[in-house]
Amino acid sequence: MLLFDQQHAPSPRRVRIFLAEKGIAYDRKQINIVRGENLSPEFLEINPRGRLPALVLDDGTVLDESVAICRYFEELYPDPPLMGTDALSKARIEARLRHVEFDGLLPASEVFRNAYPRFQSRAFGGNVGTIQAIPELVNRGKVLVSIFFKRLEAELNKSQYIAGEGFSIADIAALCTIDFATTSARIPFPDNYSALRSWYQTVTARPSTTA
Amino acid sequence: MLLFDQQHAPSPRRVRIFLAEKGIAYDRKQINIVRGENLSPEFLEINPRGRLPALVLDDGTVLDESVAICRYFEELYPDPPLMGTDALSKARIEARLRHVEFDGLLPASEVFRNAYPRFQSRAFGGNVGTIQAIPELVNRGKVLVSIFFKRLEAELNKSQYIAGEGFSIADIAALCTIDFATTSARIPFPDNYSALRSWYQTVTARPSTTA
Repeated sequence: MLLFDQQHAPSPRRVRIFLAEKGIAYDRKQINIVRGENLSPEFLEINPRGRLPALVLDDGTVLDESVAICRYFEELYPDPPLMGTDALSKARIEARLRHVEFDGLLPASEVFRNAYPRFQSRAFGGNVGTIQAIPELVNRGKVLVSIFFKRLEAELNKSQYIAGEGFSIADIAALCTIDFATTSARIPFPDNYSALRSWYQTVTARPSTTA
Repeated sequence: MLLFDQQHAPSPRRVRIFLAEKGIAYDRKQINIVRGENLSPEFLEINPRGRLPALVLDDGTVLDESVAICRYFEELYPDPPLMGTDALSKARIEARLRHVEFDGLLPASEVFRNAYPRFQSRAFGGNVGTIQAIPELVNRGKVLVSIFFKRLEAELNKSQYIAGEGFSIADIAALCTIDFATTSARIPFPDNYSALRSWYQTVTARPSTTA
């Protein structure tokens, strides 16, 4: 199978780490978003929404959404579990995953897309035509990401991982969000949050995170 | 169990319809977001993020995220299935659900929160302090919702429901998004999309949608 990938984008990385944790092999093809390759006719044939990642299975089926790709492999290869093992743990992990996306990843993306000069007239991801940057979203995004960091610190003072006592897809999402926020979106890693820093070091030490 | 609810907000409605489809009974407590009851100390004790819905189980466990609540009950009561029955259908439904949220619900929410006068300084949902409205988000949101409608029409020309041939959580999300967009966010229902209109009439006829 073939993963349409973008090395520096957070959601393709989430899938790569997830598949590495599961020990699943696949081929990769890099699509350069800054150069607009995700909006080329060839790629829109694969994924009309123009977003990454997209995974083409060996029978040609396309899965065009990061968490959906993870769900597919969690169902096929439940060991090691990354999305919970019973109703309550599945619900908790899903809640925390979505908190990370809504509170952290989306605002960090708004900071990046609305600040980066080459996205000035493509300030919203995917196949949506011309969308001009809105400078106020940069400041709003920074405020929201700072609240996200603060919440993570409070929660990681109570539990070892983002969704409780085991590593899960929520940790993968949080790691990719933080790395994206602190590099692409240029938001400093908060230096006064010791539980967050300790969690970050633990998670970053996993071999999967270099995938 | 007790659902902290808001009658007119789209995500609590998604949960109510999902539970009605499953035939699950529960108590409800209305929390008025416009009046700021979601930011009261009493509610923040239940859900520190200040968002709705939140469900308190009989043992006191709180599930504070709409899709996570649905996941919990899908696992406990898989019949009728609303989130898929095998790896591929689960992945497809998850992908379509997330498309609906990202392409439709989030931009419609931006239109509403940034246009409605009483949210002028609370223009982002939940417990995030003062966020001033950004008028440009109203126009951006309307553009994105129009693309969302157009995509739905194209897809519903190919399949009966949002994620294929069966009713699923993705249909619930799309219905709640459209009703929210056309009432609260005051975006007209597109009158030239016959597949979308036919789907809308079919789905709206389900008894669960009045929950």
